[in-house]
Amino acid sequence: MRFFSDNAAAVCPEVIAALTAANTLDTAYDGDALSRSLDARFSDLFETDVRALWVPTGTAANCLALAALTQPHGAVVCHHEAHIQQDEAGAPEFYTHGAKLLLADGEGAKLTPQTIAARIDGIRDDVHQVQPHAISITNATEYGLAYAPVEVAAIGALAKERGLGFHMDGARFANALVHLNCSPADLTWRAGVDALSFGFVKNGGMNAEALIFFRPELADATLYRRKRAGLLFSKGRYLAAQLLAMLDGDVWLRNARAANEGAALLARAAGDRLVYPVEANEVFLKASAEEAAKLRGLGFDFYDWAPGEIRLVISWDQAAETIRPLAEAIRAL
Amino acid sequence: MRFFSDNAAAVCPEVIAALTAANTLDTAYDGDALSRSLDARFSDLFETDVRALWVPTGTAANCLALAALTQPHGAVVCHHEAHIQQDEAGAPEFYTHGAKLLLADGEGAKLTPQTIAARIDGIRDDVHQVQPHAISITNATEYGLAYAPVEVAAIGALAKERGLGFHMDGARFANALVHLNCSPADLTWRAGVDALSFGFVKNGGMNAEALIFFRPELADATLYRRKRAGLLFSKGRYLAAQLLAMLDGDVWLRNARAANEGAALLARAAGDRLVYPVEANEVFLKASAEEAAKLRGLGFDFYDWAPGEIRLVISWDQAAETIRPLAEAIRAL
Amino acid sequence: MRFFSDNAAAVCPEVIAALTAANTLDTAYDGDALSRSLDARFSDLFETDVRALWVPTGTAANCLALAALTQPHGAVVCHHEAHIQQDEAGAPEFYTHGAKLLLADGEGAKLTPQTIAARIDGIRDDVHQVQPHAISITNATEYGLAYAPVEVAAIGALAKERGLGFHMDGARFANALVHLNCSPADLTWRAGVDALSFGFVKNGGMNAEALIFFRPELADATLYRRKRAGLLFSKGRYLAAQLLAMLDGDVWLRNARAANEGAALLARAAGDRLVYPVEANEVFLKASAEEAAKLRGLGFDFYDWAPGEIRLVISWDQAAETIRPLAEAIRAL
Amino acid sequence: MRFFSDNAAAVCPEVIAALTAANTLDTAYDGDALSRSLDARFSDLFETDVRALWVPTGTAANCLALAALTQPHGAVVCHHEAHIQQDEAGAPEFYTHGAKLLLADGEGAKLTPQTIAARIDGIRDDVHQVQPHAISITNATEYGLAYAPVEVAAIGALAKERGLGFHMDGARFANALVHLNCSPADLTWRAGVDALSFGFVKNGGMNAEALIFFRPELADATLYRRKRAGLLFSKGRYLAAQLLAMLDGDVWLRNARAANEGAALLARAAGDRLVYPVEANEVFLKASAEEAAKLRGLGFDFYDWAPGEIRLVISWDQAAETIRPLAEAIRAL
Repeated sequence: MRFFSDNAAAVCPEVIAALTAANTLDTAYDGDALSRSLDARFSDLFETDVRALWVPTGTAANCLALAALTQPHGAVVCHHEAHIQQDEAGAPEFYTHGAKLLLADGEGAKLTPQTIAARIDGIRDDVHQVQPHAISITNATEYGLAYAPVEVAAIGALAKERGLGFHMDGARFANALVHLNCSPADLTWRAGVDALSFGFVKNGGMNAEALIFFRPELADATLYRRKRAGLLFSKGRYLAAQLLAMLDGDVWLRNARAANEGAALLARAAGDRLVYPVEANEVFLKASAEEAAKLRGLGFDFYDWAPGEIRLVISWDQAAETIRPLAEAIRAL
Repeated sequence: MRFFSDNAAAVCPEVIAALTAANTLDTAYDGDALSRSLDARFSDLFETDVRALWVPTGTAANCLALAALTQPHGAVVCHHEAHIQQDEAGAPEFYTHGAKLLLADGEGAKLTPQTIAARIDGIRDDVHQVQPHAISITNATEYGLAYAPVEVAAIGALAKERGLGFHMDGARFANALVHLNCSPADLTWRAGVDALSFGFVKNGGMNAEALIFFRPELADATLYRRKRAGLLFSKGRYLAAQLLAMLDGDVWLRNARAANEGAALLARAAGDRLVYPVEANEVFLKASAEEAAKLRGLGFDFYDWAPGEIRLVISWDQAAETIRPLAEAIRAL
Repeated sequence: MRFFSDNAAAVCPEVIAALTAANTLDTAYDGDALSRSLDARFSDLFETDVRALWVPTGTAANCLALAALTQPHGAVVCHHEAHIQQDEAGAPEFYTHGAKLLLADGEGAKLTPQTIAARIDGIRDDVHQVQPHAISITNATEYGLAYAPVEVAAIGALAKERGLGFHMDGARFANALVHLNCSPADLTWRAGVDALSFGFVKNGGMNAEALIFFRPELADATLYRRKRAGLLFSKGRYLAAQLLAMLDGDVWLRNARAANEGAALLARAAGDRLVYPVEANEVFLKASAEEAAKLRGLGFDFYDWAPGEIRLVISWDQAAETIRPLAEAIRAL
Repeated sequence: MRFFSDNAAAVCPEVIAALTAANTLDTAYDGDALSRSLDARFSDLFETDVRALWVPTGTAANCLALAALTQPHGAVVCHHEAHIQQDEAGAPEFYTHGAKLLLADGEGAKLTPQTIAARIDGIRDDVHQVQPHAISITNATEYGLAYAPVEVAAIGALAKERGLGFHMDGARFANALVHLNCSPADLTWRAGVDALSFGFVKNGGMNAEALIFFRPELADATLYRRKRAGLLFSKGRYLAAQLLAMLDGDVWLRNARAANEGAALLARAAGDRLVYPVEANEVFLKASAEEAAKLRGLGFDFYDWAPGEIRLVISWDQAAETIRPLAEAIRAL
């Protein structure tokens, strides 16, 4: 049984159905009816006028957002364990033409206004030092922690005060949102966020993510950058269809809830072993090498995060009955 | 009836079926069984050891190939009407970090050793002038002309003599191949081609193209560049599945033949109006503004290529009976 | 006797004297008194508020200007024989992160609103085609022709109408100006120019050029880019000193006049052999290979520009008596 | 009296004399006799075949070296206080097209094989993480500490073992060398260094540094990159002349010795206040805000490095009698 990551799970049936339904001729690129409906659809969801672009990967969404907020000679402040720093192969530097990532600290890969300020306050305001242009946070974080609206807003206030753009990597935005039980608006633009990488792939999509701009003018140059990066699909309707299929009937929330509930089930079994509170669909556990081996011997697959620490991720399609045996096994360690 | 382009046609049923069949858990990125089978499968097809990478768009395939063959301070020789120059929004410059495109001439967007040499022979061999590093041709060309193996080989010989890399943009490689009735090997590496953008999307795929390296070592750094460009899908198996489904049972050849036959049907109707011989699935016709309007009035949709000239493109799924009315209408002009 | 180029001539005595005079301690980079005086000094000269930055080479000046006026996904329209296209090794692409150069035509490397429009009018306004962001002209041109204020203004009007930035490469700005006998203001910002590469090196300087922004806000990000390109000298005062020494007492005009007069002397000797009118310090002559060999045999050194054509350039320090023998030899051919 | 930095000191008389002596016509760029003599002259100095290029700034030297050793998708390991990370405005990212700097630790800005390994050993060997391509150290370090040949060699061995390029930022190479009393060869290529930024400007030059490649083939593409960065001066002989003038009669060693001796004089006065041993021409002292104010009140100018810490730098031209008063003042604190 695989608890390795949610990034390789199967695609939810609504998406498959939507791809089949979209399989007729329409205009190329993003000129088709489905793509053209995205702005309105996401504007409804976010209760404000947004620009919504499909992109195929979370890395692409993140890096187009950063390129919209940061000049090549500027910098992005992020956590030293942020995905954009650790796992995107230098894509932020590629898309921004060499902007720096300034690495800040914080428990559970979570930034605060204080840790951000601590990283940038010492930067001299001269041309020799790279100046910050934007802040990027991940919600839920790389450790499955959710920033609440008030926490986002505190960082948003700092961004505004310092004249910095504010990006949220929401690869697991849905998981954070259902945990917080707040509105998408409260978690984003009302808290000062300028651009959101709104993840669908980890949550049951195939290969479509949404890049949302809460400052609509940021989309203008991004449309050129998306094409220039080889990301403008000629049959874009098959990406739009995925996003729409998951918004319809709140499939995206249903899927995220299922994954979070599975994680909660494991969290209850884990007790003191938990490294972090479980607020999304990721569970980080203390487990010795022997214990990890024992779990693997029982057929459970997962990631060795650090010495004495393992990571278990629940996907949208893992039913409770398939998770319970792992919960039992953890209890029995 | 749409004859505007083949880039927005529906997806062929084998691809849809393959996506559904692939819809179970497997390893992420390109670690799944389908992705791992690509090298062998394309090596069989090309009768030599190749490295085959899925990428989502033709622009991505072209630009990763160019980045593998050209340093940032170098240049790529291509036709002044090449897709990489005209329709990729500067993606070659983005991926190569600013290499120049050197524009050569030729009827029907076709290069020859002579026109290439004419473009580069005047370049002084000093550090002030950008030196050519690679040649890129499109087969079939932007005007639907096929380079025969002997024509490719002549350019390949020049590339070798000058120490230049050699890329083929094969967005309509299948259409060229079925017209020429030669082997994939003869049209590529045996003629000196180093890298091929092997198009599937215009030929019935959804969002997967193959990037083929005939010098396998070129793939090594490309794997990093693919990720760095945000092009490494976490659920890569849905791209591999498309390519494999179209290789199986020669669906790719069947689709290309169908499109070419439709174009041939129009070509016979067009007679003297043809601007170029029809060797793939594109038909360029002389037609006055009034004639174009008449055709549109009959419900046919197409591209106004130039004053007095229209472009008709046949897709894999356009049956002869849907094309005949257009053929009649052209005859009746 | 060398007529090869003005780019390697000796440095005028005022510059040498200024370097010696500057040889005391002052603040580093551009914080010294000399550097800080540049804005005011050039604002006086141009009769408007400008920002003036020293840079070491004309290529650096040109490319920083282009980077200020063009986004990476945009393009610069220039003549196909422009120095930025032909002789800067791809530096414009490096500094702009891959913007394209769109090549327009014109006799004597001179653009007009018509030839510029002819190059860009066919560009579709969509994300697939690289959109023009700026125009760059060279004054005097690569063939030694001067754009008069009215000609510059016509291009400036087009730039304004199309929303394009406007850059002037003035490697030989002084030579054009003394020929036209107009004010620096009339030849630049009053005619719509946004940024000027103001050449001093070819005119008797050692290694300092001035980059002038007539829209002062363009200088802000340029200060970062100058440092980021490794162009911010710690002992910047030795660059500022050169510029100031040549403005003092109108040394720059004196030097340019001397060079132009030498060229005029040759032009009178050349008669029908002239390929272009001589409006600066360059003389392009029809001369067969035998004639060129004969001149070389007499000890004159020059550039074989094209088959049957030679280029003679007069430097600021070539006295009439050293030029007359060449004039005689040309007459005697 | 200024102890702020050595980067703004006056130029030594031999350099001024050489500029005057070079003030005759010669071939442009690096085709002149002086520039062409550099390879041989530096090869003599380093007792091996090297390629030696003039460049105008230390940032340019560093970044051209890094670009020769690192691909855009790779990384450079350096100290978190290295000049390339802290004070070059993102120039390394500009020149390498976005390679990452991986920041390692160490007292006095000094790396060791252990701290380097600690930074890179955790990097997974996959395409998601940026892989190290090169190591860069500064000798003398940003805190004025000298790496001895044996220390450099230990890092060189690690570089070789891991297949990494090895760059030395020698902005104060001369100061380190005279302290260590070893040969230039022992401190560089014999210890595994591939490329050296050999500083002359801080040591009495005007605006010329030497970029030395101990693997000569690395120079080939660098010549293109130097031009592409706008760094190829048309009157390059005035840069070559500076380097040669300082090699002649070991002026570079004389100047460095003078600066080091001044620093040693202060070090003896400082006693327990020293933060680091003084091995070059920089002195870091513990000094309270009150003490710093007192020194400033006496007319001494310096850099407030950190709370409770000041930096004093001695330039080549500061005579002992001008330093003694500061030494007295420090003693008297």
